[in-house]
Formats: sequence, C-alpha cells, structure tokens
Amino acid sequence: MSRVVVNVMPKPEILDPQGKAVTGALQRLGFHGLSVRQGKRFEIEVDGEVTDEVLAEIRDAAEKLLANTVIESFEVVAE
Amino acid sequence: MSRVVVNVMPKPEILDPQGKAVTGALQRLGFHGLSVRQGKRFEIEVDGEVTDEVLAEIRDAAEKLLANTVIESFEVVAE
Repeated sequence: MSRVVVNVMPKPEILDPQGKAVTGALQRLGFHGLSVRQGKRFEIEVDGEVTDEVLAEIRDAAEKLLANTVIESFEVVAE
Repeated sequence: MSRVVVNVMPKPEILDPQGKAVTGALQRLGFHGLSVRQGKRFEIEVDGEVTDEVLAEIRDAAEKLLANTVIESFEVVAE
C-alpha cells in the first residue's frame, strides 16, 4: 500500500469564510499574528505502487471530484 | 511572511463518512483501487520568522481550536 496526498485549497483570489472565522477565533483566544486559510486534505491509499499512471489518474480524479477548480486549486503529492 | 501548515485527519480507529463517500464516488466514476480518508489542511501565515516558540504556539492552537483531539490527530509542518 502506498499513499498519495491531494491538498485542495481555496484560490488566493477567493474569499475564505472558514479561514476568516478560524483567524478571528484564534485572535480571541490570544493567538496573534496568525492568518489562516482552510482547505482539505485527502489521503489516498493506492493498491500497489505509485507509478506515473497512478499519479495521472489521481490528478484526473482530483480535477473531476476532489476539487472544484473554479474556486479551488489542488496539488498531488506522493508520500 | 512564513508559512506553517497544520494537517488534521480523523484518527485511524474513527469512521470517516466523508472519506467513504469520496471513495464510493471515485469507484462509480471508474477510479478503482483507491481508498480515501478526508481531513483538513490549515495554511497559516505567520508574521515574522517561524521560531520554536511560534511552532509551540501553533501546536497549542491546533489542540485548542483546529483539531478535535478526541477523534482527530494533527501534525504541524513548517514549509
């Protein structure tokens, strides 16, 4: 079993209300000087080895299902 | 500005309905042999340098606010 991670984040030009809420909550808790953006992390267990074809398949899956590419960007990382 | 990332994932012994739904959807789309767990990724911009104190502060913030440590584990990564 190998692992591939897909990180999905709101694009920089997109407002991120979840991140804004977390940033505000941190400040109220006394954590200052931190600015947060919130995204998603998908840990994908792959049967067998992580070949270039598997990575291409996962990139395809990320575009079709894991990320909304209108408002989100993603990266695929083999771990 | 420096960046620290906090990854929050459901603990292995905890059911992950979101991940299960994504795994099922991928199979229906024709992506086979992939098993997904879904978590959160927080990208934190820090004013100034990432010192050991800043990392300790962010670890504290993760425990108090970003992760529910009853059901989730987290890791702090300086990028």
